[in-house]
Amino acid sequence: MGKLTHFEDGKPRMVDVSEKAATVRSATAEATVKLLPEAVRALEEGGVGKGDPLSVAQLAGIMAAKKTGELIPLCHPLPITSADVRLEFRPEEALIHVTATVKTKAETGVEMEAMTACAVAALTVYDMLKAASKGLEITGLRLLHKSGGKSGEWRRGP
Amino acid sequence: MGKLTHFEDGKPRMVDVSEKAATVRSATAEATVKLLPEAVRALEEGGVGKGDPLSVAQLAGIMAAKKTGELIPLCHPLPITSADVRLEFRPEEALIHVTATVKTKAETGVEMEAMTACAVAALTVYDMLKAASKGLEITGLRLLHKSGGKSGEWRRGP
Amino acid sequence: MGKLTHFEDGKPRMVDVSEKAATVRSATAEATVKLLPEAVRALEEGGVGKGDPLSVAQLAGIMAAKKTGELIPLCHPLPITSADVRLEFRPEEALIHVTATVKTKAETGVEMEAMTACAVAALTVYDMLKAASKGLEITGLRLLHKSGGKSGEWRRGP
Amino acid sequence: MGKLTHFEDGKPRMVDVSEKAATVRSATAEATVKLLPEAVRALEEGGVGKGDPLSVAQLAGIMAAKKTGELIPLCHPLPITSADVRLEFRPEEALIHVTATVKTKAETGVEMEAMTACAVAALTVYDMLKAASKGLEITGLRLLHKSGGKSGEWRRGP
Amino acid sequence: MGKLTHFEDGKPRMVDVSEKAATVRSATAEATVKLLPEAVRALEEGGVGKGDPLSVAQLAGIMAAKKTGELIPLCHPLPITSADVRLEFRPEEALIHVTATVKTKAETGVEMEAMTACAVAALTVYDMLKAASKGLEITGLRLLHKSGGKSGEWRRGP
Amino acid sequence: MGKLTHFEDGKPRMVDVSEKAATVRSATAEATVKLLPEAVRALEEGGVGKGDPLSVAQLAGIMAAKKTGELIPLCHPLPITSADVRLEFRPEEALIHVTATVKTKAETGVEMEAMTACAVAALTVYDMLKAASKGLEITGLRLLHKSGGKSGEWRRGP
Repeated sequence: MGKLTHFEDGKPRMVDVSEKAATVRSATAEATVKLLPEAVRALEEGGVGKGDPLSVAQLAGIMAAKKTGELIPLCHPLPITSADVRLEFRPEEALIHVTATVKTKAETGVEMEAMTACAVAALTVYDMLKAASKGLEITGLRLLHKSGGKSGEWRRGP
Repeated sequence: MGKLTHFEDGKPRMVDVSEKAATVRSATAEATVKLLPEAVRALEEGGVGKGDPLSVAQLAGIMAAKKTGELIPLCHPLPITSADVRLEFRPEEALIHVTATVKTKAETGVEMEAMTACAVAALTVYDMLKAASKGLEITGLRLLHKSGGKSGEWRRGP
Repeated sequence: MGKLTHFEDGKPRMVDVSEKAATVRSATAEATVKLLPEAVRALEEGGVGKGDPLSVAQLAGIMAAKKTGELIPLCHPLPITSADVRLEFRPEEALIHVTATVKTKAETGVEMEAMTACAVAALTVYDMLKAASKGLEITGLRLLHKSGGKSGEWRRGP
Repeated sequence: MGKLTHFEDGKPRMVDVSEKAATVRSATAEATVKLLPEAVRALEEGGVGKGDPLSVAQLAGIMAAKKTGELIPLCHPLPITSADVRLEFRPEEALIHVTATVKTKAETGVEMEAMTACAVAALTVYDMLKAASKGLEITGLRLLHKSGGKSGEWRRGP
Repeated sequence: MGKLTHFEDGKPRMVDVSEKAATVRSATAEATVKLLPEAVRALEEGGVGKGDPLSVAQLAGIMAAKKTGELIPLCHPLPITSADVRLEFRPEEALIHVTATVKTKAETGVEMEAMTACAVAALTVYDMLKAASKGLEITGLRLLHKSGGKSGEWRRGP
Repeated sequence: MGKLTHFEDGKPRMVDVSEKAATVRSATAEATVKLLPEAVRALEEGGVGKGDPLSVAQLAGIMAAKKTGELIPLCHPLPITSADVRLEFRPEEALIHVTATVKTKAETGVEMEAMTACAVAALTVYDMLKAASKGLEITGLRLLHKSGGKSGEWRRGP
């Protein structure tokens, strides 16, 4: 209960999952980019329709899911079998909402892959809007759902 | 004003900075990992003192700063000259606070490097605590300060 | 028929192969580097026999096969089980011919790995010859054969 | 004349450019993806307008320019200052034409970066169309123009 | 007996393991960093207790195990299921001893992953001590044990 | 004297070199692979002449020099301007001797790049010989010489 499985005798390690079964696992995460009025305007004027910033960020998120094992020191490298990243611009709420669902068939889950995909998609939005508006903020980066593996399903409560 | 410099004719591109001067530039960003009580307990019991999760996250942040150009599609690859990432566990507020300051001597700034370092440090904290507590949330990922370059100094208002 | 499986609702995604069976799959691709007379001479004089440019290109191709998932945004990362890249210098035709055969045991095929190995081997040849001859051209980069998986065998017609 | 500068005593090496001056350098390359009728149809139906395959390939090309030093064994790692990749679908000619212009301020040129960007953009087009049409072919991958450095300007003849 | 399996007709290739069974495999390697008196002193004074160099090196070793397939040209990329790197400072012997145990469930073994983890952990120690003492030396980098696969168990003799 | 510059308040950081001058710097390192009789035989029979293991290792060393900043956590990413890796097979001494010289024009030195190039070249030799002989050992990985920068020249004593 509350054990930090990544540590043994106070030293970090990559947890041994050699004897676990490879099963289909899925995880979904979300994040929000809070926009200032000038960024909302830039997005509305700058052409969300054609070749838009949201497409660049979506692709960055998919590619980042594949880099998770390189970025997060104690993560297992996993053969991702699916990555779906979506960005929704909600001008009336002055935000962009990001969700990512990642799947694998492996010995351990893909929560970190879904979280990393959301983070990098959101950072990419920031990168493209920062010339217009440096004050943006990324918030609410969190896991929504996971399934598969011995620990089974988990869903964020309301 | 409000122009999306990463786009030309609706198509993304890496902005041309060939003719800009290489000067010393600095950027500082922050992020917060909001903890649930079981994560606070795990950190307090699990040994923040020795070989602790915060050190792993700190190093992950420094290494991620160097990977920014690989992760953010339209970012310039920059020769980072300094990276300082700090994590502070504040049990009474049930959070971990992350700050990152990155410097370079280059034609363009390191805002994205500082933001990415914070994001990956926070994701690494999440990774190490997720066995104890999946409901953690990363929030307040944002730029605090930048200096150097033609656009000069910027500091987040209060 | 003619469906772009990498897109859903007009948005790119990594196709979900979680429920497909992991089977042995193989793919072979080819490319041609068309040489100018000065490059043919440089290769003939410069020592194709010892420590030669073709060995460097061959190794670059093998290593690139392993990087395919990083380069091609919607490609699945695959555990390659074999990579064989061959370069043949045909001075009388003034060309270098490249072939690559890649195998995996996975849920999806390795066409892109074979194509990428050929492309990078050919680019490496170009790199080593460009001081002698900038006008080289890479041509005929294409799939020759694939086998394995539900779609079965495919072979380029004559 | 015709010397293979990447080799010394028959052994490959990364050429020493330490004493050269860092100046602005630029290179432009091109490639062509030859389409079959079913791929032309898939592109026309599948939505070149919205979230289209050409945007994915364009971004892949830009990101690949930054990875050139990792892919081509004897290439110097260069701080790219600009990358502009364009794809044009010409249905009447049954092809997609790719061009890439890359710049740097460095001791050596960016021909390989421009060539690699074109190659990976073209490979990405292939990846997205291969479910519809495996018989595609990448051709005409070659340098169009370079400027900067001691060797000065070079332009492909007609 | 004595055959170089990575070569065929004098050309390097990635050995084909497609038809081998994926089984659990393990390997352990070791290395020694020989310290000079000033490095021993720096480590003793500089705080091996808190946030110490050995933790940084340990993490670098774990992360390097995941990069083995990128570094060693003919290595298969393997989904590592466990990585455990330990560093022990022995001031009386004026050395740091490194061991790494890596596991996978794959068609081929993880000797190179264990060796690479030890090498990079030792190099990282060197990096952190080189300001105090450039004369350090890494020695005794070798395999101690492997198990799994058709060739079975191997253990270094006394 | 003996200060661990990579640490401040017991926490690791990437040392700030923003204000240092970019000058030409060079470093040379060496390593030795100690061979057993069966490995000497394998090398002698297996064709050191054509497409030989030493060429593969040499290239791996050059490419690893470019990856140093990714592998060593607190290393600055440096624009390498030259990398020269040499391997010499000395059958009568039953060893392979590796040397690497790396140069840059930067704010800090390339000792780690030279050391990493030697380490990865030696590991690659090990990889190619391990089927014939697992008992090989890498030893004497150390800096021979460095020049450039404020700390000036250093040369290993006899």
